[in-house]
Amino acid sequence: MSLTIGVDVGGTKVAAGAVDQHGKIVEKLLRSTPSASPARTAEAISEAVTELLSRHAADAVGIGAAGFVDADRSSILFAPNLAWRDEPLREKVESRVGLPVVVENDANAAAWAEVKLGAARGHDDAMLITVGTGIGAGIVIGGRLYRGRWGIAGEPGHYRVVPGGRLCGCGNRGCWEQYASGSALVAEARDLARRSPTGAVRMLQLAGDNPEAINGPQIRQAALEGDAGALRCYDIVGTWLGEGLADLAAILDPACFVIGGGVSEAGELLLGPARAAFAAGLTGRTHRQAAEIRLAELGADAGLIGAADLARSGTS
Amino acid sequence: MSLTIGVDVGGTKVAAGAVDQHGKIVEKLLRSTPSASPARTAEAISEAVTELLSRHAADAVGIGAAGFVDADRSSILFAPNLAWRDEPLREKVESRVGLPVVVENDANAAAWAEVKLGAARGHDDAMLITVGTGIGAGIVIGGRLYRGRWGIAGEPGHYRVVPGGRLCGCGNRGCWEQYASGSALVAEARDLARRSPTGAVRMLQLAGDNPEAINGPQIRQAALEGDAGALRCYDIVGTWLGEGLADLAAILDPACFVIGGGVSEAGELLLGPARAAFAAGLTGRTHRQAAEIRLAELGADAGLIGAADLARSGTS
Repeated sequence: MSLTIGVDVGGTKVAAGAVDQHGKIVEKLLRSTPSASPARTAEAISEAVTELLSRHAADAVGIGAAGFVDADRSSILFAPNLAWRDEPLREKVESRVGLPVVVENDANAAAWAEVKLGAARGHDDAMLITVGTGIGAGIVIGGRLYRGRWGIAGEPGHYRVVPGGRLCGCGNRGCWEQYASGSALVAEARDLARRSPTGAVRMLQLAGDNPEAINGPQIRQAALEGDAGALRCYDIVGTWLGEGLADLAAILDPACFVIGGGVSEAGELLLGPARAAFAAGLTGRTHRQAAEIRLAELGADAGLIGAADLARSGTS
Repeated sequence: MSLTIGVDVGGTKVAAGAVDQHGKIVEKLLRSTPSASPARTAEAISEAVTELLSRHAADAVGIGAAGFVDADRSSILFAPNLAWRDEPLREKVESRVGLPVVVENDANAAAWAEVKLGAARGHDDAMLITVGTGIGAGIVIGGRLYRGRWGIAGEPGHYRVVPGGRLCGCGNRGCWEQYASGSALVAEARDLARRSPTGAVRMLQLAGDNPEAINGPQIRQAALEGDAGALRCYDIVGTWLGEGLADLAAILDPACFVIGGGVSEAGELLLGPARAAFAAGLTGRTHRQAAEIRLAELGADAGLIGAADLARSGTS
């Protein structure tokens, strides 16, 4: 058995695991992220890795991080939810743990895991779209991660789907993630509960009759019970998702889209309307084959597993 | 000097040329395209190639064609403006001319020429956008043409920029090419002339006072003379172009966009507003480097030159 260490660094927690060549996690540790301090974040990562190395022999470390990673895969240029600015993370961690380190964007690491070991196994051209609070993405082209000229390709959450549309955290208006994300799902449900409470009775019950307290798990529960209002929310968000996939297919023509992230745990509630909108909206649809739309298989561990696998291959 | 033959097959004409390794066209022939007959189109191509071979020693033939080309680069699956349906063009032409033939989508061939020998020389990740009647595109990633899983990547002209927007020839509504093309430029000018003729006096003069007769060259002439109405038309179309490039950069992060096609002959009239809209609309713009936007250098011969170069390398 050959092990590498994968680390997934988010805004609130660091997950580190020893992973075998089949993507199986042998042991996993969780730490909270000292997100205000780049120095302490590097220490927290190194300590978790060192603890794993005390019990497992591993050859290399891969770190997936929520930020813009440079083309050398060594520094974090910028991270929206962490204090990193031009942070030389590879060097800092390598000097502490004594193993080779690669740094990768977390969505890229997750995409790599799903293509190499998960839902898109066997495909050379595939795209992972993670539907959570926002939309993340990773692109694999010709069997390799595609990073773009400056390492920041794969931000389709910020392509514009509605001119002058909803304000986005990036400062623009009408970005895809304002329409096809978990935030959009919750906003849709709360709006329904405010404006047309008789259509949202079940969701309001679950949220203590407070429209502003409706959350994702409640919407999912109501939808699974067959509640029409909750199903309508998934239909709206799933339709925006599928229409966006049709746009991405016009540009990239991938073999497969893998849909991950928290909202995808609703499965066909989200993917059913997405597939219908994709089939209806794909340009040239009568003269082409169409990409498959599949559910992610590796769940929240995809980033950690992908980072470990990228460390194993040294490159991709 | 080593020569290959490049052929560009459009809906109305076949252009064939003998091209050297630097992209220089030694001799070029033009034939009309018998577009209703696949058999006669293959004959017209073969005859032009054979005539060139009677005067020039060449090693291989590359054909750029306006259609969906299969992943083997041998057959045309479908062509909007020609009668080809699953047409085995490579086999037909190879058997007639006795040289190896590769078939490529014409926009891909043109993109290859601009990256290898034209405006994007030296870049590994670049995209050609041709702004003509519609929008064509070719994508080079990691120094190779990117064709997608089924050979039909690079149709951003049909990603949706306005939900429920203008009807497109592809059957969808709101496609980019309905807003950022030569057709859109002419529609804008005619609309101005119909609704607000005092704002379109110069364009109406040039078109014999008939709004429906205003065409692209007249709009360009009026704009070059400083006419406010014509400049406004370029501003509108150039802004849609730049906003679309910002979307493509969010997804693909290329080093360079090359803008070609008939409308790009207006140069900065189109590219000025496009650059401004791109800079204003790029997501994460304060934390990233941005792609350059350059004018194409090889003009209408790009497809022919690119096809010849693809034939030379055998692959890309």
